[in-house]
Amino acid sequence: MARIVQKFGGTSVAGIDRIKNVALRVKREVDAGSEVAVVVSAMAGATNQLVEWTNQIARLHDAREYDVVVASGEQVTAGLLALALQDLGVDARSWLGWQIPIRTDGMHGRARITEILVAELQARLRRGQVAVVAGFQGLGPDSRVTTLGRGGSDTSAVALAAALEAERCDIFTDVDGVYTSDPRIVAKARKLDRITYEEMLEFASQGAKVLQTRSVEMAMNHRVRVQVLSSFEDTPGTLVVDEDEILEKQVVSGIAYSRDDAKVTLVKVPDRPGVAAAIFGPLAEHAINVDMIVQNISDDGRTTDLTFTVSKADLARAVKVLEAQRKALAYAELKPDPNVVKISVIGVGMRSHAGVAQKMFSTLANKNINIQVISTSEIKVSVLVAEEYTELAVRALHTAYGLDAE
Amino acid sequence: MARIVQKFGGTSVAGIDRIKNVALRVKREVDAGSEVAVVVSAMAGATNQLVEWTNQIARLHDAREYDVVVASGEQVTAGLLALALQDLGVDARSWLGWQIPIRTDGMHGRARITEILVAELQARLRRGQVAVVAGFQGLGPDSRVTTLGRGGSDTSAVALAAALEAERCDIFTDVDGVYTSDPRIVAKARKLDRITYEEMLEFASQGAKVLQTRSVEMAMNHRVRVQVLSSFEDTPGTLVVDEDEILEKQVVSGIAYSRDDAKVTLVKVPDRPGVAAAIFGPLAEHAINVDMIVQNISDDGRTTDLTFTVSKADLARAVKVLEAQRKALAYAELKPDPNVVKISVIGVGMRSHAGVAQKMFSTLANKNINIQVISTSEIKVSVLVAEEYTELAVRALHTAYGLDAE
Repeated sequence: MARIVQKFGGTSVAGIDRIKNVALRVKREVDAGSEVAVVVSAMAGATNQLVEWTNQIARLHDAREYDVVVASGEQVTAGLLALALQDLGVDARSWLGWQIPIRTDGMHGRARITEILVAELQARLRRGQVAVVAGFQGLGPDSRVTTLGRGGSDTSAVALAAALEAERCDIFTDVDGVYTSDPRIVAKARKLDRITYEEMLEFASQGAKVLQTRSVEMAMNHRVRVQVLSSFEDTPGTLVVDEDEILEKQVVSGIAYSRDDAKVTLVKVPDRPGVAAAIFGPLAEHAINVDMIVQNISDDGRTTDLTFTVSKADLARAVKVLEAQRKALAYAELKPDPNVVKISVIGVGMRSHAGVAQKMFSTLANKNINIQVISTSEIKVSVLVAEEYTELAVRALHTAYGLDAE
Repeated sequence: MARIVQKFGGTSVAGIDRIKNVALRVKREVDAGSEVAVVVSAMAGATNQLVEWTNQIARLHDAREYDVVVASGEQVTAGLLALALQDLGVDARSWLGWQIPIRTDGMHGRARITEILVAELQARLRRGQVAVVAGFQGLGPDSRVTTLGRGGSDTSAVALAAALEAERCDIFTDVDGVYTSDPRIVAKARKLDRITYEEMLEFASQGAKVLQTRSVEMAMNHRVRVQVLSSFEDTPGTLVVDEDEILEKQVVSGIAYSRDDAKVTLVKVPDRPGVAAAIFGPLAEHAINVDMIVQNISDDGRTTDLTFTVSKADLARAVKVLEAQRKALAYAELKPDPNVVKISVIGVGMRSHAGVAQKMFSTLANKNINIQVISTSEIKVSVLVAEEYTELAVRALHTAYGLDAE
């Protein structure tokens, strides 16, 4: 008998009528003969409200108490969905993180799942009972409530699917699949039927919000077949699978962009061994992640310009840290720039096809878009350009790589 | 070192500023050198919202899922108050029902506390850490979340005070104590400095909303000194204590009233053995509680009129049950009447003073108020009168027993 994990996000459970609608969806899967475990997020807006309260009440967070407060949102939807299912005659019960338990490490606010004890759940699934599991939450080593970080319910669902050895993990959301690019920008974006884990991982980490990066990593590591589909429309979604499940591979699968990055340039840093370590050491100490890095030799041959990106949210702190190190680093000028966008061309086909990066550069050059920083991986080329070119660049690349729908 | 349990109700924690205010109150007790455990309700309105959702989502309740949903409100305030205390430099942590645990029986929605394991809590209190406990909730025998029924946080607080052998249980609420009568009706009502458990129990069960009846029973059984006081004003409250702690006893301590009752009269029921059992058996089977009962011999000597009260919420169901039994009961007429009020004169001094009931009857007669039903206990006389006389009757009795403030 097929065993399926279904996950419903915040917009899918935002209100009583929508939860009833979710119950109908779940029932359909049950009626089709599947064993079903459902993972739910908090009602849209609920988590934001809870987070806001924790911000209003204290200047500093005890992440353990933060977790107690914010985990309550998923508790509510789990109970309500169980009631809605029962009302449809479906045997169902809710499970909180500590009840299963979903064990995590002790990193409150961004805990990682270490173990899910599924024996009881499995026995009940076999008896035909639907398990409604509160997403986003777990049980820490000290028997306290933990949460997995924003979007963590995706990770809950994939981890549960792995532990239950489910045939598929269906992620129901407010979009109906993974697109070749953001349809709000690219009218001709196409929905992908299938995408590899590796590509999905790049999409997620390069700005596409459809799945939490960590959940994709987990799916890839445990070979969980993930489907992204709409909770409002009844159309097939996008299947995230192993590369060998995709017969006809595209060279490029899509164009992602992220406005979450900011650029920092240090002008005329002395060009001597150890300078990079002297710059990035203090940033790392302050838990500021650096993404792209580029270093240029300047005219005089004795100094260099160093450019890198951090997340926009960290920019002010990064500037502060570097200004405090001004003497030691001996740079001439510090130039922060939040008005940038990172655009990425993604595709596993790049591994075997040359010229993908070249096509990106020439396409942007033809539109007179200046590239500020470049970084590449095996299946991705990313460039940093001025934010104002976002739409122009993404559309031009979408066309250039032959991704436009007919 | 004094060990105190403080309980804050929904209006006391209705919003971030009020929770901060509660934190200041708690801190003051900590600064005075006490070991403090705090029990919190959900923010005012939160529980109603959660209950409403459960009503909207399903026609029938699974009480276990109802409990999962409604218990989330106290979880939020417990976490927020712990954060607020930490912000003031007070060592504090939140405790959910399952974490302590507060063990209960399996009667979901109205569970009874069976055991509280306080070893860990006690150790932390001794180290100076404030325990912030989510009220209203517990852990059932099947490891599921239970709740104690509306107002159950009072019971949580008193039970915790008993388990911790606390010196006092302070119930902070939106009134500043127990009054000789409802100040909204009786302008000359006086705040009582002390009241006995027995009287408080009658006050609570006869309509005064200040404490949940069950919490008073528990306080009486475990001899927990309870103080009712305002969370907004800084005045002493009312101490609920053992009778021997009150030196000068009043004959009558106060006048309570309840509009929650409804009257049912069965006209011309055959006057034969077993008729009362035939009437009240089916009501009991439908879990309808009957309070006052009076039976009159009618003129013909072969039939009797039977009058009793049920809670207003049960009236429609009671009528239905009795109409279904019409043939078996052979009554001539069934008269339901929701427009009644039960007024009670309460005081432990009645035990040793005669004439208390007589004064009640004559006072009401002087105001031309007809008494429909009478019931008495050792320390209470209750009468049922038409609802329109509520204010007139309560004020007249308050004056007659010498309770008016000067």
